[in-house]
Amino acid sequence: MEISELGEFGLIDRLTRDLKPINESTVKGVGDDCAILRNHDTDILVTTDLLLEGVHFDLTYVPLKHLGYKSAIVNFSDVYAMNGNPKQITVSLGISKRFTVEHIEELFAGIRLACEIYGVDLVGGDTTSSRQGLVISITCIGEAPADKVVKRSGAKDTDLICVSGDLGAAYMGLQLLEREKIASAGRPDFEPQFQGKEYLVERQLKPEARRDIIRELDKAGIVPTAMMDISDGLSSELLHICKDSDTGCRVYEDRIPIDYQTAIMAEELGMNLVTAALNGGEDYELLFTVPLHYHDAIEKIPGVKLIGHITKPSLGCAMITRDGTEIPLRAQGWNPLATSADKA
Amino acid sequence: MEISELGEFGLIDRLTRDLKPINESTVKGVGDDCAILRNHDTDILVTTDLLLEGVHFDLTYVPLKHLGYKSAIVNFSDVYAMNGNPKQITVSLGISKRFTVEHIEELFAGIRLACEIYGVDLVGGDTTSSRQGLVISITCIGEAPADKVVKRSGAKDTDLICVSGDLGAAYMGLQLLEREKIASAGRPDFEPQFQGKEYLVERQLKPEARRDIIRELDKAGIVPTAMMDISDGLSSELLHICKDSDTGCRVYEDRIPIDYQTAIMAEELGMNLVTAALNGGEDYELLFTVPLHYHDAIEKIPGVKLIGHITKPSLGCAMITRDGTEIPLRAQGWNPLATSADKA
Repeated sequence: MEISELGEFGLIDRLTRDLKPINESTVKGVGDDCAILRNHDTDILVTTDLLLEGVHFDLTYVPLKHLGYKSAIVNFSDVYAMNGNPKQITVSLGISKRFTVEHIEELFAGIRLACEIYGVDLVGGDTTSSRQGLVISITCIGEAPADKVVKRSGAKDTDLICVSGDLGAAYMGLQLLEREKIASAGRPDFEPQFQGKEYLVERQLKPEARRDIIRELDKAGIVPTAMMDISDGLSSELLHICKDSDTGCRVYEDRIPIDYQTAIMAEELGMNLVTAALNGGEDYELLFTVPLHYHDAIEKIPGVKLIGHITKPSLGCAMITRDGTEIPLRAQGWNPLATSADKA
Repeated sequence: MEISELGEFGLIDRLTRDLKPINESTVKGVGDDCAILRNHDTDILVTTDLLLEGVHFDLTYVPLKHLGYKSAIVNFSDVYAMNGNPKQITVSLGISKRFTVEHIEELFAGIRLACEIYGVDLVGGDTTSSRQGLVISITCIGEAPADKVVKRSGAKDTDLICVSGDLGAAYMGLQLLEREKIASAGRPDFEPQFQGKEYLVERQLKPEARRDIIRELDKAGIVPTAMMDISDGLSSELLHICKDSDTGCRVYEDRIPIDYQTAIMAEELGMNLVTAALNGGEDYELLFTVPLHYHDAIEKIPGVKLIGHITKPSLGCAMITRDGTEIPLRAQGWNPLATSADKA
């Protein structure tokens, strides 16, 4: 069977089916932003990401230092998404012959900068040659008090659905970078045009993880009922939360936070703006649910927006458009196992 | 600067130079078989390995199930080498288009078998497409009581140097498999000749981690002063222990454990047997040091051999040959960052 028939989540389901934890310390295995390992009253959170040149990044327009920074950030984001704090990372690299020591130092400068800013220790890894391209595998270990960890599965009927920041900008940044790359082909003196679109480029090349939101929630005494980071797109993540929590949801089109640069770029490219915001991916914003009575407390947190609410499972998952129509949410996020043809 | 000029350890030194742990839980970062994270009186051990097709394995003669098994085992071995017990692994895969779902199920069957036998939970990972070949990145998390963890740096003058099992067989197995691969080129009905050499093939394709030795040491009440697993070769690992412990060492050629199949194969190939045993690598045996007064207790543990002793640093690291000559130990283990030309 072709792997693209199953997709990433289908393949993982198939490979990890019937896995039963043997060790007492294994609280939660496959199926959330992080695995959860219990140690006394502390939960150890573990997440890992594999990034391959030509699949996840294009060094034509991604500076190595930015790549290092982002590779670390995407892992930190998974730990924050469990309401934890990232503490350590390991970094494994596969390096082809076209890279020099100076190149790898640049990459590491970005990783180390991210670690410094987010208070994370680089504790190990593996370094080897690769036959083709750069391979980056990062594992991050975080901590949280056992009673504060937030999984995907805790959302309840009537809970409010909240999202941090704005959506779709990283995806539009990618479209912009790809457009300029094509325009530059064969023109060595080409100057890419990013004026007025700096935010989009930054969201794509140098995302941040939302530690600030986790801290604000903690200050307000709020532990979300469910949480994820938005890496594959809002639709895909909402469907995950609703499936794992056995609920439905309603989100409102006019509540979805979108930056004006994202809107302008979508118009320029003739793309549907809401589709980009729902399915664009790589936002690394936090999507979470809280009980209804936190309505006023949530509204006070800067950078967090209420976009809808959780429902009974029988109602399914849908978006209410500006004109009041209900359209079912579908996961159209990026499938890392799709072939290029599938992705189009 | 070319990366091959520095080698793996040189590059890691350069990239991780001046790293200072920020978090209280970070006890030991880069530079041992595992990183050590403290949690109350338990140490969490973390190790990671990146395996790339065409660099670390050749699917012409490595069955996918064996590859999965070995990929897990090499990580468990690093945890045992700290006197810990592996508890969880994450498995990330990069998969090119030539692999089917059934292929990946085979690989996973091997990983899951290793987990079952060694009592380890598979708790997460990442799955993505790759442009070329198979990428396997495994991270293993282990545990040990904080007062039982063994680093590389604790060897003391007069300590005994011990090694489990026998050395050089995995390397000879690789030579044999490579020879049969070359012989089979263009001959579809070719039958590889492994008779009388089954042990070598098994050591290369399906190594085990020495949990049994860790248990025997524990039963005997022995905590080694320093320990490593032999993945790059005895010479290389001994030099690591002596450097990190600030000692010298003497090992005796006639004490180095070598299986008769290894000896026969070396003769067949016209290779120096002791060089193969010292530098072959991939043995996944345990190399450890214990205080002198454990001499009799160690001799009682089946499968462990005393091969020499630790000395003052001024004496350097050397092997005493059968005729009494001292030759300095040199690390000629496999350098994963060397180019093919360098490796010859």
